[in-house]
Amino acid sequence: NNRARMLISCPDGPGIVAAVSHFLHQHGANIVQSDQYTMDPEGGMFFMRVEFDLEQLEDRVAGLKNDFKSIADKFEMQWNLYQLSKKKKLAIFVSKEDHCLVELLWQWQAGDLDAEISMVVSNHSDMKEYVESFGIPYYHIPVTPETKAEAEQKQLDIVNGKVDLIVLARYMQIVSPALIQPYRNRIINIHHSFLPAFVGGKPYAQAYDRGVKIIGATAHYVTEELDGGPIIEQDVQRVSHRDNVSELKRIGRTIERVVLARAVKWHIEDRILVHQNKTVVFN
Amino acid sequence: NNRARMLISCPDGPGIVAAVSHFLHQHGANIVQSDQYTMDPEGGMFFMRVEFDLEQLEDRVAGLKNDFKSIADKFEMQWNLYQLSKKKKLAIFVSKEDHCLVELLWQWQAGDLDAEISMVVSNHSDMKEYVESFGIPYYHIPVTPETKAEAEQKQLDIVNGKVDLIVLARYMQIVSPALIQPYRNRIINIHHSFLPAFVGGKPYAQAYDRGVKIIGATAHYVTEELDGGPIIEQDVQRVSHRDNVSELKRIGRTIERVVLARAVKWHIEDRILVHQNKTVVFN
Amino acid sequence: NNRARMLISCPDGPGIVAAVSHFLHQHGANIVQSDQYTMDPEGGMFFMRVEFDLEQLEDRVAGLKNDFKSIADKFEMQWNLYQLSKKKKLAIFVSKEDHCLVELLWQWQAGDLDAEISMVVSNHSDMKEYVESFGIPYYHIPVTPETKAEAEQKQLDIVNGKVDLIVLARYMQIVSPALIQPYRNRIINIHHSFLPAFVGGKPYAQAYDRGVKIIGATAHYVTEELDGGPIIEQDVQRVSHRDNVSELKRIGRTIERVVLARAVKWHIEDRILVHQNKTVVFN
Amino acid sequence: NNRARMLISCPDGPGIVAAVSHFLHQHGANIVQSDQYTMDPEGGMFFMRVEFDLEQLEDRVAGLKNDFKSIADKFEMQWNLYQLSKKKKLAIFVSKEDHCLVELLWQWQAGDLDAEISMVVSNHSDMKEYVESFGIPYYHIPVTPETKAEAEQKQLDIVNGKVDLIVLARYMQIVSPALIQPYRNRIINIHHSFLPAFVGGKPYAQAYDRGVKIIGATAHYVTEELDGGPIIEQDVQRVSHRDNVSELKRIGRTIERVVLARAVKWHIEDRILVHQNKTVVFN
Repeated sequence: NNRARMLISCPDGPGIVAAVSHFLHQHGANIVQSDQYTMDPEGGMFFMRVEFDLEQLEDRVAGLKNDFKSIADKFEMQWNLYQLSKKKKLAIFVSKEDHCLVELLWQWQAGDLDAEISMVVSNHSDMKEYVESFGIPYYHIPVTPETKAEAEQKQLDIVNGKVDLIVLARYMQIVSPALIQPYRNRIINIHHSFLPAFVGGKPYAQAYDRGVKIIGATAHYVTEELDGGPIIEQDVQRVSHRDNVSELKRIGRTIERVVLARAVKWHIEDRILVHQNKTVVFN
Repeated sequence: NNRARMLISCPDGPGIVAAVSHFLHQHGANIVQSDQYTMDPEGGMFFMRVEFDLEQLEDRVAGLKNDFKSIADKFEMQWNLYQLSKKKKLAIFVSKEDHCLVELLWQWQAGDLDAEISMVVSNHSDMKEYVESFGIPYYHIPVTPETKAEAEQKQLDIVNGKVDLIVLARYMQIVSPALIQPYRNRIINIHHSFLPAFVGGKPYAQAYDRGVKIIGATAHYVTEELDGGPIIEQDVQRVSHRDNVSELKRIGRTIERVVLARAVKWHIEDRILVHQNKTVVFN
Repeated sequence: NNRARMLISCPDGPGIVAAVSHFLHQHGANIVQSDQYTMDPEGGMFFMRVEFDLEQLEDRVAGLKNDFKSIADKFEMQWNLYQLSKKKKLAIFVSKEDHCLVELLWQWQAGDLDAEISMVVSNHSDMKEYVESFGIPYYHIPVTPETKAEAEQKQLDIVNGKVDLIVLARYMQIVSPALIQPYRNRIINIHHSFLPAFVGGKPYAQAYDRGVKIIGATAHYVTEELDGGPIIEQDVQRVSHRDNVSELKRIGRTIERVVLARAVKWHIEDRILVHQNKTVVFN
Repeated sequence: NNRARMLISCPDGPGIVAAVSHFLHQHGANIVQSDQYTMDPEGGMFFMRVEFDLEQLEDRVAGLKNDFKSIADKFEMQWNLYQLSKKKKLAIFVSKEDHCLVELLWQWQAGDLDAEISMVVSNHSDMKEYVESFGIPYYHIPVTPETKAEAEQKQLDIVNGKVDLIVLARYMQIVSPALIQPYRNRIINIHHSFLPAFVGGKPYAQAYDRGVKIIGATAHYVTEELDGGPIIEQDVQRVSHRDNVSELKRIGRTIERVVLARAVKWHIEDRILVHQNKTVVFN
């Protein structure tokens, strides 16, 4: 597999697209998709995602990266290059509700998530058997007020350096800053409301009390601020006065599943750039 | 026109539907539509909307209402009877943005809003000529910090007792409690966000800053709490990182127009019941 | 469990709601939900769904049905009474694509489908192990042009009289009229297009060729006319020129799953009435 | 105003993006937005839209176009360059229903359609006064079976060479091939159904008869095949068994208005490329 993707952010200025595309062309790469976005024509940020094929990529990737440095320096780029042959490794964190996990595993089995699911981590043992039937290791790390610090250290030991992305698939615990720090913009959470409405606990009960006519779910990167990180994707469904809290939960489960799976897929496919607590999604 | 509608709220209990439908049948009325909703089978509230035809309604309506009192008392009903021949009178309040007003007037002209538009009230004179070209009186009541109390008194004098419903069609002033009081659940506002997200001013700028992927608008009855009244209708539209604040406003204008017009139509058609800051909408 | 539901269709006329609700009240039943719809105020059809509680229902249901006959005769009603304690029995037919089956089993496990899944029938053996892991019998009945008649007879023998509803969860064979006949309005199919667009085979390829900007799925009752039966539910998703046929299929799988599950749930909850190739859905 | 846009289609191959962006950079242009799409990595078509600023554009545009020819020839490009200072001229064709015309005029007045509305052409005189109040010429050209050929000749004489885009805003006549020919991919029609469902006349009646649960509207370029041209945009709205044909029409009017206005806006902003009866829309 000779395909790779580059994600680039830098201050906008003339000649960036020309420089990047010329560079790739000179190195024999064939661009198969390219997306750009400039925040503001005058003085804003420039974002680019470019997908290309290059023969003998594995042998030439180090040289390519090295050669790109001069362009990157010139335009003050933050950039990454991802080879499609190196699948991203995922850890899925889950508590007792299984619907988001089931969806991710089903999409992964169906070949829709081009990643490796390295492990499932849970504060409960409920889904151990189910997860292991897929051949995926399951780490049961109970979390109590007393063992919280210890549990977080265990989590960190298990994932750190071993996975590329952590997915909180209705993991009902607050994640430690010690985990957020090394996984900045690499932890995706699904919040069961249309953020920023109904931050925090029991969002469906909050939605019911407020009498909203549409409910939603939000996938976002996790930051130190609860439910405050960059939003990746949201979706909604119409509800009515007839729907009580458990009906809202039932309807919401399908929204949550779909929204989380989309966000994970986009991350895996290197479609997301983050800038100042907001995302640029090339989809 | 011999058609009428009843809206009924009462504590739930056995025999309500039987009593109401039996009563109407006994009086020679033919039910053309009937909707019920019980909040909770055990011990909740019961809501009913029934639409019926009764020959010589005009002559018999007083007797019908009188006869219904014993049923209403028995079940502790709050109820209203509306004759379709008596069109509701509307006052539309507007500031400088015209899109919601234009939509309401267009739908009204197209015959989709079965009401009388009695007047337009504005703190600006911009739309005077346009409104008057429809033969609708236009009251220009400027509002400044100094003249606020006086202006509110003028508004009250103009509308009170003369209109049945006040529509705030992007009226960018806070409405006086003196107006809210007599028009409880009869003032509809359009808020240009998906409430309860982005309460207050500049919701599109707030939405842009938070980086949401979907924007919305909310029609609600006005209460003393800013943007906190019973929600009637909401709708949304997908946006992306490419949409800046003015693009969000442009997209939002269409959502606002549509959502407000739906809420007004439902109110006119007696489809909305309010209970504890939430609406039951039979649509 | 003392709850039951009645579904009623009859020519419209005065006094129907009064008669039914009075009858139930007289027999000590407490109506917990009631929906009516009249096709056309003058001379159309009347449809009603009423859900009620009646103490000692099991002992009294025969008497209740018997007593109701005089009302049913008077108004020329077609009607059914369903006890919630008697769960509907489902047969799910499936071929090689598993997403609709997986969704139904997941929702059933989550308690969202209040039915009994009696069996899965397939022309392939692929999902035998998976289905049996739920303790559900799996009948593998291969269908070839030569064995078609024999296979259909086997299917009929297996399901007839033993199940209440047949769900074609992406069963890629045309169902025999011998099966349709006894299961009139009791076979639900999911068609992977927004009917009536793209009837027949390969709807996603047809959609791609036509360049539509939105794709959909349709759940309908099966009749002798291919993809021509009464539509129960449809939903859609936006697509773009970037989506090739396999991408449309991937997006479509989620729509199919959701739409089929909704239709099955509504059927199980007795929310659907059929009249002249169209459905009335009280949801 | 020094801004321009290029739309490019050509067979895919290596180096196109590099060549175009390098060319623009060399000529001193600053790319403010660039979108590409390759139909299929191997052997498909390549599409590009690039928006750029170039100082003293008016003086340099002829030279720029001339210099670009060698690149265009090399890659076998079909291409156009549009200056934003030269607003597109529109003719709107309308019959008796006014909602699409009203929407376009309102959006145009609000500054959302960056074009010149040169004329309105109608087979009826109903909207003459309304249109002329905007200072827009109104041509009333009655069409009867006898005068059809003559009327079409008149239309052609009026528009040909004088407008860039013809918008059929619910113009209920079939457009002459003599008009389609010179305006290939420059006539936008709004069809009041979710094409390809319900081609031809009375689509809402067809939708009602089929019992669909969602209705829609489709904006497409007009070709010789009735309702068969390249689809630009579609949108939908949920309906229910309660909605009769006139209710479907009412709901549909809002979908039609919004969908047509979006398609016209995208055309004006040079966001649409057509290839083999399908559109690529960069929005």
